[in-house]
Amino acid sequence: MNDAFQLNPQLASDCHHIGTIKNIELLLHKNAVVPWFILVPHTDNEDLLALAREERIEILDLASRVADYIRSHTDYKKINTGSIGNVVSQLHVHVVGRKHDDDCWPKPVWGNLQTESSYDAETIRQIKDIICT
Amino acid sequence: MNDAFQLNPQLASDCHHIGTIKNIELLLHKNAVVPWFILVPHTDNEDLLALAREERIEILDLASRVADYIRSHTDYKKINTGSIGNVVSQLHVHVVGRKHDDDCWPKPVWGNLQTESSYDAETIRQIKDIICT
Repeated sequence: MNDAFQLNPQLASDCHHIGTIKNIELLLHKNAVVPWFILVPHTDNEDLLALAREERIEILDLASRVADYIRSHTDYKKINTGSIGNVVSQLHVHVVGRKHDDDCWPKPVWGNLQTESSYDAETIRQIKDIICT
Repeated sequence: MNDAFQLNPQLASDCHHIGTIKNIELLLHKNAVVPWFILVPHTDNEDLLALAREERIEILDLASRVADYIRSHTDYKKINTGSIGNVVSQLHVHVVGRKHDDDCWPKPVWGNLQTESSYDAETIRQIKDIICT
């Protein structure tokens, strides 16, 4: 746990802030071309698999809740999950909805999305309502 | 749990079989250019984040053990983790050791490795000894 947690500026700039749940920042990537959430736990540890077991379980529990949201509320039924951190070293976990005719299927989204679209404020409010309450 | 589990032929062809640990097949990608392990649980479920919580925890526990091996026994200290499955739908989890001067840093390995190398039989035997015992 890191009480002096500060969100990496690149993540802050790339994403909408959805909420803070159990010391994990839940972000939504601004590119709405696929439903792409990013979880950022309050830790100085840079690798998911180097965390204490209980911390890892908490993050995966929230990731699973986000995946449930994507499957229930969008037509993206396949979920890609990853924690890479080669560019932004602050530990973050991607939860990304995918479908066979999406922008870069079957490639992973990282570095491969070709188009961009934006969320409107009402959609972001709805996502916050559903996931955070 | 799937008692009639069969390993996907593409995964079988791409990887060395290291062992079966608690209903999870542990594979080592044949391309030795980075230490790249793949965990394949005995399940018909295709997404890590759609598994029952206990199954997900078991897979992440083994992934963490594999990450410990990579950090302790290689000079790849950064671990990338991902479960994508857009090409091979059978659920599998990647645990990949990375370093700043590796073959495709900072890109993810999927689709980006430029070179190939092979493991010798003795190295594979040592990996089996260390991880599976």
